[in-house]
Amino acid sequence: MHTSPWIIAWLLLLQGCTAEQLQRATSPRTDIRDCSTNPPYLPSTVTETTARLAALRGAMKAHSIDAYIVPATDAHMSEYIAERDSRLGWVTGFTGSAGTGVVTLDKAALWTDSRYWTQAERQMDCNWELQRTTWIESIGLWILEAVPAGGNVSLDPFLFSIDTWNSYSEALHGSGRTLLPIETNLVDQVWGDQRPPPASSKIYSLPAEFTGSSWQEKVAGIRQQMEQHVRNPTAVLLSGLEETAWLFNLRGDDIPYNPVFYSYTLLTSTNIRLFVDETRLTAEARQSLQAGCPGPLCVELQEYGQVRAHVRDYAQGNVTIWLGTEYTTYGLYGIIPQEKLLEDSYSPVMVAKAVKNAKEQELLRAAHVRDAVVVIQYLLWLEKMVPQGLVDEFSGARHVDALRWAQEHSRGPSFESISASGLNAALAHYSPSNVSSRKLSVDEMYLSDTGGQYLDGTTDITRTMHWGVPTPFQKEAYTRVLMGNIDLSRLIFPTNTAGRTVESFARQALWEVGLNYGHGTGHGIGNFLSVHEWPVGFQSNNIPLMKGMFTSIEPGYYRDGEFGIRIEDVALVVEAQTKHQTGEKPFLTFEVVSLVPYDRNLIDVSLLSQEQIQYLNTYYKTIRERVGPELQSQQLEEEYRWLQRNTEPFVQSSAGTAAATLCVLATTSLISALLTELQA
Amino acid sequence: MHTSPWIIAWLLLLQGCTAEQLQRATSPRTDIRDCSTNPPYLPSTVTETTARLAALRGAMKAHSIDAYIVPATDAHMSEYIAERDSRLGWVTGFTGSAGTGVVTLDKAALWTDSRYWTQAERQMDCNWELQRTTWIESIGLWILEAVPAGGNVSLDPFLFSIDTWNSYSEALHGSGRTLLPIETNLVDQVWGDQRPPPASSKIYSLPAEFTGSSWQEKVAGIRQQMEQHVRNPTAVLLSGLEETAWLFNLRGDDIPYNPVFYSYTLLTSTNIRLFVDETRLTAEARQSLQAGCPGPLCVELQEYGQVRAHVRDYAQGNVTIWLGTEYTTYGLYGIIPQEKLLEDSYSPVMVAKAVKNAKEQELLRAAHVRDAVVVIQYLLWLEKMVPQGLVDEFSGARHVDALRWAQEHSRGPSFESISASGLNAALAHYSPSNVSSRKLSVDEMYLSDTGGQYLDGTTDITRTMHWGVPTPFQKEAYTRVLMGNIDLSRLIFPTNTAGRTVESFARQALWEVGLNYGHGTGHGIGNFLSVHEWPVGFQSNNIPLMKGMFTSIEPGYYRDGEFGIRIEDVALVVEAQTKHQTGEKPFLTFEVVSLVPYDRNLIDVSLLSQEQIQYLNTYYKTIRERVGPELQSQQLEEEYRWLQRNTEPFVQSSAGTAAATLCVLATTSLISALLTELQA
Repeated sequence: MHTSPWIIAWLLLLQGCTAEQLQRATSPRTDIRDCSTNPPYLPSTVTETTARLAALRGAMKAHSIDAYIVPATDAHMSEYIAERDSRLGWVTGFTGSAGTGVVTLDKAALWTDSRYWTQAERQMDCNWELQRTTWIESIGLWILEAVPAGGNVSLDPFLFSIDTWNSYSEALHGSGRTLLPIETNLVDQVWGDQRPPPASSKIYSLPAEFTGSSWQEKVAGIRQQMEQHVRNPTAVLLSGLEETAWLFNLRGDDIPYNPVFYSYTLLTSTNIRLFVDETRLTAEARQSLQAGCPGPLCVELQEYGQVRAHVRDYAQGNVTIWLGTEYTTYGLYGIIPQEKLLEDSYSPVMVAKAVKNAKEQELLRAAHVRDAVVVIQYLLWLEKMVPQGLVDEFSGARHVDALRWAQEHSRGPSFESISASGLNAALAHYSPSNVSSRKLSVDEMYLSDTGGQYLDGTTDITRTMHWGVPTPFQKEAYTRVLMGNIDLSRLIFPTNTAGRTVESFARQALWEVGLNYGHGTGHGIGNFLSVHEWPVGFQSNNIPLMKGMFTSIEPGYYRDGEFGIRIEDVALVVEAQTKHQTGEKPFLTFEVVSLVPYDRNLIDVSLLSQEQIQYLNTYYKTIRERVGPELQSQQLEEEYRWLQRNTEPFVQSSAGTAAATLCVLATTSLISALLTELQA
Repeated sequence: MHTSPWIIAWLLLLQGCTAEQLQRATSPRTDIRDCSTNPPYLPSTVTETTARLAALRGAMKAHSIDAYIVPATDAHMSEYIAERDSRLGWVTGFTGSAGTGVVTLDKAALWTDSRYWTQAERQMDCNWELQRTTWIESIGLWILEAVPAGGNVSLDPFLFSIDTWNSYSEALHGSGRTLLPIETNLVDQVWGDQRPPPASSKIYSLPAEFTGSSWQEKVAGIRQQMEQHVRNPTAVLLSGLEETAWLFNLRGDDIPYNPVFYSYTLLTSTNIRLFVDETRLTAEARQSLQAGCPGPLCVELQEYGQVRAHVRDYAQGNVTIWLGTEYTTYGLYGIIPQEKLLEDSYSPVMVAKAVKNAKEQELLRAAHVRDAVVVIQYLLWLEKMVPQGLVDEFSGARHVDALRWAQEHSRGPSFESISASGLNAALAHYSPSNVSSRKLSVDEMYLSDTGGQYLDGTTDITRTMHWGVPTPFQKEAYTRVLMGNIDLSRLIFPTNTAGRTVESFARQALWEVGLNYGHGTGHGIGNFLSVHEWPVGFQSNNIPLMKGMFTSIEPGYYRDGEFGIRIEDVALVVEAQTKHQTGEKPFLTFEVVSLVPYDRNLIDVSLLSQEQIQYLNTYYKTIRERVGPELQSQQLEEEYRWLQRNTEPFVQSSAGTAAATLCVLATTSLISALLTELQA
């Protein structure tokens, strides 16, 4: 798990105002602004926004706009965004990944969730109000107070999802204020030449050994779905950056941690238009796309900025355009007449991408074996270094990042490493920085949530450790988190079961004693693509689980001001062997592909059921079989021995064993009594 | 569980075309129509619809209508409807509870789900096509083929929910066909004086001893919610019949099994309008409603038919009207300007009704004790009569109905009793009739799903029995259904958990071996109101579980052509005692209030965990404590002994016991060996 605007729903039950509470408890606040004094107190971390706001208001007046809404996303509803798209950050100073700004002619306000309240107060000057909520209804109410009837409320329609647009539209409906989409982005206009330039690095073809099928096969599959669909769509419009990257087996590096590039695709039954800066394509990539020209498997290259004009032209004809409403912007959606739209939450490309074929599964499995080597190296290193007081959160994160870079096919981390010691781990989104980094210690728990990009797959794994003597409560909480991880991982369920309906199995062991965690239980993951790959997972807007999907399974427990636990593995949905087979399709279960043992120091075996212990022992056997040889081939002998030690089978300590033990004791006393008798 | 149009979603995963398959397997079809011969073959169960259709088409022509849509519901989206509202039944001949008819000038078609395909072929003549689906999209496509562009597609907007209206509107959008609401119901017009008259029986006040609070207190509570709501609604509009009945503590008998009466309520901050046939109110009821007149607690009585005009007038003002979109018709909704609507899925009255206060809980508990007496009497009676071959499904149902009527405060069954033997129980909705009723036998399983209306509460319980030797598979399936019932009943979960996210606990034991069931897991239930009381339950459109709610818990398993199992109890959501308490609110669990033991003959104790056995034994102790004294006070001594026999604690047969047994054996051999030695 880690910070993300795109999966904000995933953090539905946030941990309250944890960060703030912690800060309040530990020191008088010189780190945050105080707008109640005259002059206001501003820490050095604040960005001065007076001039920026004045320029923006000038642009608003020129367009007769009374309120301008600035979101945190880009034109593809990406989870991570490039610096160039950080419009909210530039205008507010606030650099958190989730939030909305609204600027009127005399006010400015930022809405963000509790994870970011402290950060916002550290980064924003007193031009900005902080609104501690994210509901669009509340933004709407604020606008209704700030903008008189007859006023214009405006936004860039290419930066808002269809749903968000509709919510604003509803909030203002009938109020006398007009919601006015304007295509010129006013922030970009006033940002001017200070705005970072567009990406210019190469866009390249993924070598065939790392792809599940050729792009031509993928296109043929999507066209077949179009033909078979009852509505007979004539085109599929792709707005998600990972859709185009996956479809054409292309990669780039326009966005940190995500090997994607700015693009749109309009795939029709007879031709293919890729909207991209074509000068950035490598010769091989261009050759791959255009080998079939002219013809239905020829990719026509168009300017990235031309997508709107092309879609508008195309929509003039007798056509039906299929798109995914979860991540298409209102800017594109709104130019297609309603009757020519075929709307699904996710495009057929997004869904096809989510179901990995046999080769893609093998690639991801292989990436996870090398990634397990990295994590095992890291755990062993920590075991040796922490007791000497030689590691802090930041140096730990740098070390595991370096270990990942050293593996074959590595392209670095798949997100900013989370490395959190003691109470910092109670902040579910915490990442350390150079300036504030806690020392790891044998007296505290430590949580490491990291992942890698490899040409063959993307990984994401969390382990929580304690190198000293955990409290009984820490041990119980850890064990129950582990029980949840196991219970969901070993669940057998019918095909097409919605993740939402089974994620509670990861919580039950905690619930049983009154505990819970405030985030989602998992997300999809890609083959050298996004670390959070929708639409797979356990949330209400995920699609049902199908054979071939990969998802993380990551229950946790967080104790404010004390510690945090999360145990995260990536698992593949596979067919289950069941005693009976009644349905048309076999039932499903998970095969865990993350291959790193859990911290034995934190497991209270007496809480585990026989089934859970048996599951653990089988899993550990698999780890030995798959990771052991890799460690040996990398000549990591010390790590190999560490693995053997840490994957010893667990021994049953349940009622059966207890009874057996009692039996032995009883029998022993009996025998000695009888022997005494005999000898007497 | 039983048939219902309102909770059709509950049967999402229907058991395929079970009924039909069974019939096909057993006999050549003389029971269903055959439209392929000339003349067509029509069984005697068919209704002749030629004249009715001709009359309807005449009316359609007079209104320039090309297609007319006829639903199965009434103007309150009621689950059960009165004969007078059975428009679909009259025009098609088909009397199933779920379906949609469409009549064009030369075609007619009925859409219904697989439960009803055989019934439709038995009841409809060849004027009607049978469409084996219920998706509105497919109805839309059929209409697009049958009605040329420029045509009018019409319906009575008072018989369609907002969602259904929107779906039709979407299906026809941009197609050149107009969706035209017309207020005159054309079926009623041609049905004429053959249509059953409106209900005329008395509407009465529920005695204070059977109500949780006075209607004035309930009104005050709702008004308080209106004041506290951020949108400041000025009125609440109630369309659900049980909303008005609950709010005013009134009951009637306009609809079979449901003690409600036709009505609407418009509750504003200053006055109360009840739309009802006021001549039907008893003197006491009128007195209760009008004791506070004039004043804010005076109920103004208006004609039932005047609701639309009144709401339209009221909506002219500076008002905001709060309503529940799940069951308000488009006819009422559409006359309120969008900006004056406050839409929730359920009105505050529906939600208040769902959370029972302490007195309502006690009333429902008491009704379940007497209902347990009924079911125990029935089970004992079956035990004696079935082996003699003296019971069939229909006589069994009549017997249990009679037993219910004999209990104090009884108002008869709460739905048509389901009494299904052998393969009939595989049809989840089966009810026996006088003409086709299977004999109960010691060689078959038997499923009884029945419930009662009592002045203090509504009940619903299912037990499945076998009086002979069940097969190992039957025993395993029954035990796993029971395990599911137990696992969900004993679950501890945070407050505000959505039922949808925990209902899989009722399925896990089945899933584990590749089995499942094709219906929902439970529904809310009322205090002398509906047996299916929304919005409580385990489906996606239910509201989160809160302390004080009652829901059924009813997993099952159905084997086509062989047998059916369902184990249903009603449970109250209560606070749980947990080891830790971290959240603001205590966690929740269930208290099962249905108090009838399960069939010991069908339980394989070796499959149960220690926790499940312990739960069962505690539950059985509760049954003895609560039902035992009631049986004695009703002088049902034989039933009392039956209860004692059937609630004996179960003995552990798990690993612990096995180990202990082995120990005893081992020790015994050891001793005898030693003794031999000694004696030697």
